[in-house]
Amino acid sequence: MKSIAVQVGSVTVGGSAPISIQTMWKRPLLKVDESLIAEVNRLQALGCDILRFAVPDMETADLLGELASRVSIPLVADIHFDYRLALRCLDYPIAKIRINPGNIGARWKVEEVVGKAKDRGVPIRIGVNHGSLPKKFQDLSDPAEALLAAAEEEIEILESLSFRTIIVSMKSSDTESTVEANRRFAKEYSYPLHIGITEAGPLIPGIVRSTLALSELLKEGIGSTIRISLSDSPETEILTAKELLTALGLRKGGIRIISCPRCGRSGFDVQGFLKVVGEKLQQDQRNLTIAVMGCVVNGPGESRHADLGITGSGDKVVIFKKGKIVQTVRPEEAVEAFLKEFRSL
Amino acid sequence: MKSIAVQVGSVTVGGSAPISIQTMWKRPLLKVDESLIAEVNRLQALGCDILRFAVPDMETADLLGELASRVSIPLVADIHFDYRLALRCLDYPIAKIRINPGNIGARWKVEEVVGKAKDRGVPIRIGVNHGSLPKKFQDLSDPAEALLAAAEEEIEILESLSFRTIIVSMKSSDTESTVEANRRFAKEYSYPLHIGITEAGPLIPGIVRSTLALSELLKEGIGSTIRISLSDSPETEILTAKELLTALGLRKGGIRIISCPRCGRSGFDVQGFLKVVGEKLQQDQRNLTIAVMGCVVNGPGESRHADLGITGSGDKVVIFKKGKIVQTVRPEEAVEAFLKEFRSL
Repeated sequence: MKSIAVQVGSVTVGGSAPISIQTMWKRPLLKVDESLIAEVNRLQALGCDILRFAVPDMETADLLGELASRVSIPLVADIHFDYRLALRCLDYPIAKIRINPGNIGARWKVEEVVGKAKDRGVPIRIGVNHGSLPKKFQDLSDPAEALLAAAEEEIEILESLSFRTIIVSMKSSDTESTVEANRRFAKEYSYPLHIGITEAGPLIPGIVRSTLALSELLKEGIGSTIRISLSDSPETEILTAKELLTALGLRKGGIRIISCPRCGRSGFDVQGFLKVVGEKLQQDQRNLTIAVMGCVVNGPGESRHADLGITGSGDKVVIFKKGKIVQTVRPEEAVEAFLKEFRSL
Repeated sequence: MKSIAVQVGSVTVGGSAPISIQTMWKRPLLKVDESLIAEVNRLQALGCDILRFAVPDMETADLLGELASRVSIPLVADIHFDYRLALRCLDYPIAKIRINPGNIGARWKVEEVVGKAKDRGVPIRIGVNHGSLPKKFQDLSDPAEALLAAAEEEIEILESLSFRTIIVSMKSSDTESTVEANRRFAKEYSYPLHIGITEAGPLIPGIVRSTLALSELLKEGIGSTIRISLSDSPETEILTAKELLTALGLRKGGIRIISCPRCGRSGFDVQGFLKVVGEKLQQDQRNLTIAVMGCVVNGPGESRHADLGITGSGDKVVIFKKGKIVQTVRPEEAVEAFLKEFRSL
């Protein structure tokens, strides 16, 4: 079943919109200055569509509000327990609130928050996490069922107030129950799903486990927006999400990098070169394949199939364009020569 | 069809053996000393089962031979074109030769290499790469068919000399044709498959693309040994392979880390903590779940389900064991307190 479309600031989530990429700010928000704005804009340039901030207190709510008026990326306020924080955020151009109405307390508090969100046209994401389930769901033997039941209870509260611009997430650090809960939800509900594996772990296990679980859901057409949770930087979360969507054919454009792992034959520092040119390639939206190779065994072959290729060969570096050698330069000239050819593609 | 078992030094590849993990040495081999031996042993301790070296010249062949007599991990010599390098490596306790007989040249050279490998009981891996296919296969419209045809031609050469301790790999930087070639091969042949995506790229795209492609094959029971090719360190290749096999239920034991991505609520430097304790956890073979969490929203919940958990809480750090708080310490005492509890599990 196709989900309904929910507007998150300038980004549509669900319906026939492309799958959007989210990450979360990882530090306390202490002041809004040019350097913060530059960092946020950089995440957007890397491919982040929606950016979320934890709002643990009123100062943060005000700062987030200020930031929201100074950047174009939709910002989300992540709130636990305190309805006043949600009300304060709704004074500002916040694009979405993540709050579980079941955690707010008395009914009149829920009504105030939901009423104000409706007035302002701000959607609410219900975010159910297996690590913080309400007590009564914690000991259900089927963890997928526990996630789903907790989400359903939250949805009922919002629906009872005729609030329907809802996005839902059900996350666990266990991939199987996350996949299963989302699968069951998608069969029954038309609210867009925000999918992710929570607390997926450090960089490597986190990417592997998120890729395995989210690819299962995405291949079944489940998931309108994704967040890769890694104990690593927001940049790595965005790049992982981009790569996953691209590899599954769900995202168009962007540079595909073919690069060799290096071995004892390698005459060219592939990893060092990629460190220097990486961000330029990651920010580019053209649909191109770039081969960065260390030696002449597979280098020329891979470069032949790429739009632009660079390969070490003895003490020289050879640049290929659409399969033809266009430059042979010294290693210290490689970055500049490569970027010149890259721009001209 | 179950593959035959081929012995690679002390490691069995194929048959009913567990799927083994390989990586490749990334620097030229210039001398064999204690520091090199320590590095190789460290890769083995991390989970590497088989280690491959490029052998571009006679000096490297001799050094690899010396190394092979001083470490217990099976070493593989990767040779292109020059039959004399293969003969020299076979003078030493090398566990496997990777060479394509079709690249050696005259028939008598092939006979010498294959004869000596048979005498020494050393298996040969045929490694077909889409970036270095023989000319006649390069322009086949179906790249999976091209990989398969090139592998078949190599197999025929070895079989014509009654050599059957063969391992085969067919790799491309394109995930689809790699998956398809290996699938077709597994239907027709019983030689064990070494699977991997070649030139998969830098860390993040490389892990995502390798996970997507190899998980498809592994779920179908295809692949006896895996190598993740990343433009990154051998350690990252090993950890990715371990995580992939563990997540698919194909590898037993080892620490599972649940760790939070941090946000503005986080009071504990999860990433910094993991950097310090990471390698200890990665080398441990016990089957345990460890939760490393930043705050009290999901921290206690996740820690409750883990064998050992650590969570920031205000300016303190709380350690949970099997769901019960066992220590509350200052952040600067966290590593020592955690490792003490970890050892005693």
